[in-house]
Amino acid sequence: MTLADEVIGALRTAGATVATAESLTGGLVCSTLVRVPGASDVVLGGIVAYAADAKIELLDVDPDLIDERGTVDTDVAAQMAFGAQERFNATYGISTTGVAGPGESEGKREGTVHIAIAGPDGVRTTALQLVGDRDTIRNGTVDALLSELVATLREET
Amino acid sequence: MTLADEVIGALRTAGATVATAESLTGGLVCSTLVRVPGASDVVLGGIVAYAADAKIELLDVDPDLIDERGTVDTDVAAQMAFGAQERFNATYGISTTGVAGPGESEGKREGTVHIAIAGPDGVRTTALQLVGDRDTIRNGTVDALLSELVATLREET
Repeated sequence: MTLADEVIGALRTAGATVATAESLTGGLVCSTLVRVPGASDVVLGGIVAYAADAKIELLDVDPDLIDERGTVDTDVAAQMAFGAQERFNATYGISTTGVAGPGESEGKREGTVHIAIAGPDGVRTTALQLVGDRDTIRNGTVDALLSELVATLREET
Repeated sequence: MTLADEVIGALRTAGATVATAESLTGGLVCSTLVRVPGASDVVLGGIVAYAADAKIELLDVDPDLIDERGTVDTDVAAQMAFGAQERFNATYGISTTGVAGPGESEGKREGTVHIAIAGPDGVRTTALQLVGDRDTIRNGTVDALLSELVATLREET
């Protein structure tokens, strides 16, 4: 059983739905989830907000926050998760923002990642410092986010 | 050189940008593109509109069209591509809608897929009938769309 299978099963048990807001993972979280047959019952969709403007316009991230701290930030991750939750009217909104590399971005080190889960009980953010190439960092981000979501679903239901 | 490398290179040469609107591929088109280092220069982001409501609300697909023909339709694909192009203010909007299976959906056979590319010269849609399991159908859709985009970029620039 993959992590994605676990997430889909846990969402179904909880009668919950999810929507994604992705930056560095570029759609990998959502596409990993929808690989599971029957995922369409619980995965409503997602937004890949790669550009800062997309984060502001499509996910309602505060532009002043981005001006002040850049897009690789724990509060930006939280706002992205809330944005996805609201846009899709989902039980859970889950998000990723960070630096996949190669090299730094916005003064943040390669592998600096923030993930967030917004749900009925509020928002939970996690900061990661991952090591590896671009694919390793992105895959590590997906795994961390899906693990957190399984843990959250187990706690809340 | 992968197809994604070719797309990113051709977009860069053309001074063009792209945004995605995905249904059955669930983010796989966008995540395939952003695997290429430096993709953020030309890939603005995307919307995964798995649910019909998301296609209507986030991509401005005509609800009457979906009522009449369902979501697996060539004109729905075209409207999704225009929706992505507009939402992200991108040179090109590219889209996928179809049945990944297993089994049929909305009366359409597994492997029935429509893809579209909206660009400065209008929109081009392609209908596919793919054979294989869920992953094969989704990967085949991504390859077909990226190939079409490379061809379109070569013609238009």
